[in-house]
Amino acid sequence: MEIFQNATLATLQPGEQAYGLIPSGVIAVEDGIIRYCGTEQGLPAELKGQPTTDLGGALVTPALIDCHTHIVFGGNRAREFEMRLNGASYEEIARAGGGIISTVTATRSASHDELLAGALRRVDALLAEGVATLEIKSGYGLDIETELRMLRVARKIGHLRPVRIRTTFLGAHAVPADYGDDKDRYLTEVCLPALEKANAEGLVDAVDGFCEGIAFSTEQIARVFQKAENLGLPVKLHAEQLSNLNGAAMAAEHGALSADHLEYLDEDGVKAMKASGTVAVLLPGAFYTLREICQPPVELLRRHAVPIALATDCNPGSSPLSSLLLTMNMACTLFRMTPEEALAGVTREAAKALGLSDCGKLQEGLRADIAIWDAEHPSELSYRIGFTPLTTRIFGGLQ
Amino acid sequence: MEIFQNATLATLQPGEQAYGLIPSGVIAVEDGIIRYCGTEQGLPAELKGQPTTDLGGALVTPALIDCHTHIVFGGNRAREFEMRLNGASYEEIARAGGGIISTVTATRSASHDELLAGALRRVDALLAEGVATLEIKSGYGLDIETELRMLRVARKIGHLRPVRIRTTFLGAHAVPADYGDDKDRYLTEVCLPALEKANAEGLVDAVDGFCEGIAFSTEQIARVFQKAENLGLPVKLHAEQLSNLNGAAMAAEHGALSADHLEYLDEDGVKAMKASGTVAVLLPGAFYTLREICQPPVELLRRHAVPIALATDCNPGSSPLSSLLLTMNMACTLFRMTPEEALAGVTREAAKALGLSDCGKLQEGLRADIAIWDAEHPSELSYRIGFTPLTTRIFGGLQ
Ligand SMILES: [Zn+2]
Ligand SMILES: [Zn+2]
Repeated sequence: MEIFQNATLATLQPGEQAYGLIPSGVIAVEDGIIRYCGTEQGLPAELKGQPTTDLGGALVTPALIDCHTHIVFGGNRAREFEMRLNGASYEEIARAGGGIISTVTATRSASHDELLAGALRRVDALLAEGVATLEIKSGYGLDIETELRMLRVARKIGHLRPVRIRTTFLGAHAVPADYGDDKDRYLTEVCLPALEKANAEGLVDAVDGFCEGIAFSTEQIARVFQKAENLGLPVKLHAEQLSNLNGAAMAAEHGALSADHLEYLDEDGVKAMKASGTVAVLLPGAFYTLREICQPPVELLRRHAVPIALATDCNPGSSPLSSLLLTMNMACTLFRMTPEEALAGVTREAAKALGLSDCGKLQEGLRADIAIWDAEHPSELSYRIGFTPLTTRIFGGLQ
Repeated sequence: MEIFQNATLATLQPGEQAYGLIPSGVIAVEDGIIRYCGTEQGLPAELKGQPTTDLGGALVTPALIDCHTHIVFGGNRAREFEMRLNGASYEEIARAGGGIISTVTATRSASHDELLAGALRRVDALLAEGVATLEIKSGYGLDIETELRMLRVARKIGHLRPVRIRTTFLGAHAVPADYGDDKDRYLTEVCLPALEKANAEGLVDAVDGFCEGIAFSTEQIARVFQKAENLGLPVKLHAEQLSNLNGAAMAAEHGALSADHLEYLDEDGVKAMKASGTVAVLLPGAFYTLREICQPPVELLRRHAVPIALATDCNPGSSPLSSLLLTMNMACTLFRMTPEEALAGVTREAAKALGLSDCGKLQEGLRADIAIWDAEHPSELSYRIGFTPLTTRIFGGLQ
């Protein structure tokens, strides 16, 4: 049993108080579970008189959850970033081997251990910010062997570091060069068999796709989702990032956990998501890096009470970002979200986007995934830029 | 004597090679000074046969220089940030005590030790990114006593941490409420006497002002610069941030080390800066936070070969940013600067902006302020977002 008192608890429990704030709170942890979380006065009799740690008013929040990453990949795209800023055209970059296909090539040629070593550096950056749950997608293999290798590396991270990993199969991320425009043949020959094998190996928590003109149509994504349903796996979708293909509505019809990106989402899509309980995952790092103009419809999402989560989208091309705190600041600065929405987006709503009901809030009975900050008020977490006020990260009750 | 071999040296020496790059280089350090920096073959005979450290190809750059910060201040403005995102008007925020005056109030009421403790947290974040030289401005006291206290705290940081501090007197930052619109009386009664006292105490390396409609006119700034000249102190100026008052040209006439912000700078101002050797210090963190539309004229600055430096502008209002690496990424992403310009901006050109000729490059005879990175190419420093690949920081030859 460990009891922290004199804590500024941002419980993220919905209610009248912004952030579910309890100013002079107490939180008690036992066997990896939150035993009590509330006011000093409300502390159960059996917990009184135990030794406590005085936090001196420090802020306590649920540990953070990064619910959308592509953090396992080979190579990096720094030189492509530089070429573009030196004025190279997209054609020149493509000729120099740039774009997502360069990451596919680098990922295919990287060993399990090389992929792992590269990913761990980025994962460690997230953990140092208080992340305790991390979603990782495949999708840079685009062949059966490499898709499985990516997922195995992702799972391995959860054995090497104190973090919970959720793996998402994203075979429908792009079409490898040797399939040309024959996307359906790629799905038949690679994506669907890879999903089946990965699932048989127990490597898949959810199934994702990229629904966009440059990737897959709603009909093609439906084939992937159908297979997921047959396997009993939940789905989610990259939708409405660069145009509106009504991907979010299609995902909602399949009861998707989340639709992600959503810059071009319209009100019909918002309503469909509301009806199905699909979480909107916004990715300001990609918006920032791609210098997007069209903002995701935050006001519509609010009006229809669709839960909004935030994630880094950590990937080597459109979001080489490994800071969830910076993601919160970007959501406030670029999308005009409030600091309360931003914190909910990387805790309570991010848990929903992963289908997890045992974390994301400070509440009795939930996992003791807790972050303690050198801060007085939760708004500070979104306000600062490039600064990590974390003092203690507790993962399943362990520091 | 310490010799590092097998290093990817980004010397930042001007020349044909981008970044002054030396792929398999050697750098030797003795008595805090760079003794040799060049190819393996060029290593002087007397340095051969000494024990060396093999860096395995790791990137080595000059240590970073943050040449424009307001890192010493009281309080924070997270609640104001939150109020604005919750839809509060500027009037409501002002009534709630927000804006720069709230920082002045908090700074005045903070003790030397409180200001120091707050600043050290932010300074430590910069040092963890490889910063070895840091400029710190006064300007949140706006009374004689507090302006001096800020500068003393700034100097103290250089005694407590392995970092070189350059202090800048910025009494002409804003007008305290009790002077109303009588800006000249404030200069006469507070700013100029404070500058004189601070200089007498040896606390001033340079003199700065804020030239803007909401702050001081060029004529008022000229009074401050005149005093600086009388005291033999170099000057610099916050200019053309929100409008074009021809402040940069006026600063150039006074031989200013730098003009900073510069979003609204025009070609005449650029030419004036070129003629006087005044460095353009761009501050993308403030541009980002204030959601500015008008970009600084990077193309004009390039065409006229005006040196461009970058800095965090770390301050509690318009740039609560304490990452110089993120500043580099913002300069590339938001201002379309190249990664090479970004790295030069936080090393070689930042040194110029502070009037320092003994750092900012890897070159024989300069200070051994060196950063070693877990990276293969210097473009990676600008490409990544929210990630610090620093492995070793060497300050005056000491790790
Ligand atoms: Zn993604
Ligand atoms: Zn400034």
